[in-house]
Amino acid sequence: MHSLRIAMAQMNATVGDLDGNYKKIVRLVEDAKDRRSDLIVFPELAITGYPPEDLLLKPQFIDGNIGCIEKIAAKVGGITAIIGFVDKKEDIFNAAAVIHNRKIATVYHKMFLPNYGVFDEERYFRSGTTPVNIVLGEIIIGLGICEDIWYPDGPARVQSLAGAQVIVNINASPYHMGKAHLREEILATRATDNCAIIVYNNLVGGQDELVFDGHGMVLNEEGEVIARGKAFCEDLLITDLDIEAVFRKRLHDPRWRKEKEAAEARVEEIVLSGGKTKTKRRTKPVTPRGTTQLSLIEEVYLALTTGTKDYVLKNGFRHVLIGLSGGIDSSLVAAIAVAALGKEHVSGVFMPSQYTSKESEEDAMALADNLGIEIYTIPMEEIFKSYLRTLDRVFTGLKPNVTEENIQARIRGNILMALSNKFGWLVLTTGNKSEMSVGYATLYGDMAGGFAVIKDLPKTMVYNLAEHINNVQNTELIPSRVLTKEPSAELKPDQRDRDTLPPYDVLDQILKAYIEEDMDLPGILAKGFEREIVIKVIKMVDASEYKRRQAPPGIKITPRAFGKDRRMPITNRYESY
Amino acid sequence: MHSLRIAMAQMNATVGDLDGNYKKIVRLVEDAKDRRSDLIVFPELAITGYPPEDLLLKPQFIDGNIGCIEKIAAKVGGITAIIGFVDKKEDIFNAAAVIHNRKIATVYHKMFLPNYGVFDEERYFRSGTTPVNIVLGEIIIGLGICEDIWYPDGPARVQSLAGAQVIVNINASPYHMGKAHLREEILATRATDNCAIIVYNNLVGGQDELVFDGHGMVLNEEGEVIARGKAFCEDLLITDLDIEAVFRKRLHDPRWRKEKEAAEARVEEIVLSGGKTKTKRRTKPVTPRGTTQLSLIEEVYLALTTGTKDYVLKNGFRHVLIGLSGGIDSSLVAAIAVAALGKEHVSGVFMPSQYTSKESEEDAMALADNLGIEIYTIPMEEIFKSYLRTLDRVFTGLKPNVTEENIQARIRGNILMALSNKFGWLVLTTGNKSEMSVGYATLYGDMAGGFAVIKDLPKTMVYNLAEHINNVQNTELIPSRVLTKEPSAELKPDQRDRDTLPPYDVLDQILKAYIEEDMDLPGILAKGFEREIVIKVIKMVDASEYKRRQAPPGIKITPRAFGKDRRMPITNRYESY
Repeated sequence: MHSLRIAMAQMNATVGDLDGNYKKIVRLVEDAKDRRSDLIVFPELAITGYPPEDLLLKPQFIDGNIGCIEKIAAKVGGITAIIGFVDKKEDIFNAAAVIHNRKIATVYHKMFLPNYGVFDEERYFRSGTTPVNIVLGEIIIGLGICEDIWYPDGPARVQSLAGAQVIVNINASPYHMGKAHLREEILATRATDNCAIIVYNNLVGGQDELVFDGHGMVLNEEGEVIARGKAFCEDLLITDLDIEAVFRKRLHDPRWRKEKEAAEARVEEIVLSGGKTKTKRRTKPVTPRGTTQLSLIEEVYLALTTGTKDYVLKNGFRHVLIGLSGGIDSSLVAAIAVAALGKEHVSGVFMPSQYTSKESEEDAMALADNLGIEIYTIPMEEIFKSYLRTLDRVFTGLKPNVTEENIQARIRGNILMALSNKFGWLVLTTGNKSEMSVGYATLYGDMAGGFAVIKDLPKTMVYNLAEHINNVQNTELIPSRVLTKEPSAELKPDQRDRDTLPPYDVLDQILKAYIEEDMDLPGILAKGFEREIVIKVIKMVDASEYKRRQAPPGIKITPRAFGKDRRMPITNRYESY
Repeated sequence: MHSLRIAMAQMNATVGDLDGNYKKIVRLVEDAKDRRSDLIVFPELAITGYPPEDLLLKPQFIDGNIGCIEKIAAKVGGITAIIGFVDKKEDIFNAAAVIHNRKIATVYHKMFLPNYGVFDEERYFRSGTTPVNIVLGEIIIGLGICEDIWYPDGPARVQSLAGAQVIVNINASPYHMGKAHLREEILATRATDNCAIIVYNNLVGGQDELVFDGHGMVLNEEGEVIARGKAFCEDLLITDLDIEAVFRKRLHDPRWRKEKEAAEARVEEIVLSGGKTKTKRRTKPVTPRGTTQLSLIEEVYLALTTGTKDYVLKNGFRHVLIGLSGGIDSSLVAAIAVAALGKEHVSGVFMPSQYTSKESEEDAMALADNLGIEIYTIPMEEIFKSYLRTLDRVFTGLKPNVTEENIQARIRGNILMALSNKFGWLVLTTGNKSEMSVGYATLYGDMAGGFAVIKDLPKTMVYNLAEHINNVQNTELIPSRVLTKEPSAELKPDQRDRDTLPPYDVLDQILKAYIEEDMDLPGILAKGFEREIVIKVIKMVDASEYKRRQAPPGIKITPRAFGKDRRMPITNRYESY
């Protein structure tokens, strides 16, 4: 028996772009053939992109996707391909087609459908009921899709017991911090439990609030990662799988032999016939890809640049606009935008008011200068005064309050959108997760824009990431004063964030416990925070649900982001304190 | 055997308000006892309100709801009660508690969980597996929750075959046009198929985008509606059920006897013991409630007033603000707001620009006068000019375009929000479904506000409803010129909607086919519309997804509304034409 050479196509599919995805798949198949691969594996729903959401309710969309898989099948010979698509039988299924010898040899239907967090698969798909093994010469390969591999009793178990030496699992698994590590633990367990090689392939790229991080892996039967796909970018990872090692391991592992004897594995076995059913002869094996892993902050940085780039470009924009205040949030967003799109595709606008400090102006200008981006200065004082004059009669006798602060924020929103409308640029908003959580943001003001880059990044991580960027660039890309000065919205005299909010290191810990971990008041208090502060934070979070509902989408980087990931009613009298 | 007197509590529960809902339930139990009822029935999830969404992920919320059902149980004697709540066992269940003799006698777990349209029940609940009948003296009652009754093979079937004469089905079934009629058809089929009395109770009131319409019904074993709960308001409907009639019917129905003989119905039967297990003696039967039904337009009117009232009040507001343009949309929204909240709780603001016609001003003033609401006039020309001056340097050499129109809309948005912030009023937006569909609206401009009353009402129905309101009031509440003049946004000279959009009667038909019915281009063309127009409309709908994502919530009245009901990706390259 030869080894099996497998090509993992970490592909950046675009939702709805059936034709574009089709063409990309065909190109990748040719690449893999040129590199003498026996099998090429594509991500989950590679034809439609993921998640296609309610496009799945359009019959013509389903038919179009089936047309694509049929067109691909007609073109694919001399290599076997496993490709994610939507199958239509008595219902629709999240499926993997096995293409061999210019035909669809079999189709596997995903058995475990996720319907939590950002996932809604029960809304669309019926669950498959049958594990499938394919037989390529002497090698047996079990098929799985994403969630299937997360359960110890999932199909990989019976597939292995029925003889599969290799489990191919295709994914559209969205990123959150540390998830790659979590996946690796699970996959190592599955590999050792099943004495099988696991080939884990994942989608790449941004789709609205989600970023798919690639991070594909091949694990041997000992649970060791022997090859690793790139993180956050497209890749064609070629690996030679040592199938003999699986045989040897199974032969000598008493636990496995015992389990195998006891098992009655019911699996549909499809023998691939015609075309090349022997694996190819190769003189030179591929060298396994190095296994360095990213730090958490590197991961986050790549997630944010990838998500920004894909949102902008996939939606047909080429240029973005950012309101630069001289503060840390907008500075970070600008740095990310430049990394994602290039400095010539990023413009800043500085909109000073009577409350804007000289330092803010200097810092905004220095940032633009460091990044090499153009910056407009558009003073807003005259407009603000015209509002005050116009509203004077209605507000007569009433004291200035948050109203006047919000008017200023909304003037800035209007100016940004005017430039957006006039020049066709996408506005990136600059609010962070701490602010979005407690509603420390103005709806239609600083929240106005198409994409909220750091919406899911807590303020404390905003600082960490800014420092990381400066460190990596080995220069003060983000001016050091921006990192050290006290945060302020500068919407009234001597305003500071800490007049309204607890210190950010405290706030962020409370928010994590409350939002990401669903902890109750006693649980949060047990961490040692002051009762009064915790209750204030909880109230602010609950009261600003209506703002978040009207916020632009932004990139999920934590285990629970706002958006599809957290579906809270606006009308809600529950008091979590 | 006596008849069974059943009380259907069409209750307006508030999401998250465990204590408030608990108190309301206890009060209604007392009312039903006073009226000598044997059994009282509450809606689905009456304790938590519906849908509680991600509140269900908070363990303390689940525990609080169980605490409530236990407190209620301790108080309820002399009557049996069926109450919707969230049960917690190895997982959580959408459940109905049967309370008898101050104890929870049994708990039924909903078997069919909806996970389509606006529903996400698979996200939270595990499905029940066991149909339950309760035995009250000589009467057997089958329990069901909402979706359970929609399937011919649902639990009602086996419950009836196992002897249930009455099927109680408790609901949180959201309104859309004509749904009450649809429900009645289904229920009549179930009643006749099962030779059983069906008691269908539904929640009442608004919750974010949804309105629950009550519209409870009791159908006899012939499928005839014998009593009807009120529509869109709370009600305690008392009905005497003639159980003997079910016996007689079953005895003499050959089809039933045959099916009964063939059946092996597996149902858990719970015999209620202790307390009053005999139905009460009553000298005077209740007179069945009249069965008049509402017209479609009456339904819609009540849905919109109910939804508006509940959104405003349940969110702690007492007063709303509406930008009045003199056009049909804002006039209708103002009329609905006055009906929902009373004229003293509604303010209008008229914000003329250089493009505002004299007619618009007259019509806005006449409307305010007819409705008896206060109206501010806040001219926006000065502010607009200050924007133009400020942006002049940046826009130099560029022609005016939609940018300048949007600036005006956003100035109005800013003024409305300033009044909202200063006075604590909720801004109601006035966009209709036709505009929301094609993106004929300005983000942060006319889309700025807390609640979008007619967001799901197509423009053609806006006219119908305005006429209906005038007819019912028998006066020109909405000035007749508003109904007849040509629609215009008045954001540039001589602007008319039809310069940009097809005539509304054509547009609305295309939108219904495309959005509500998922029809493809050939299907829509087959209805006789011009190819060019249909393609233009489809493109406009698809391109404005990003706007809708940032729109305020509004009331669902069609089978498919925007919001949770239609989950389209923003990043989407699929071309439906």
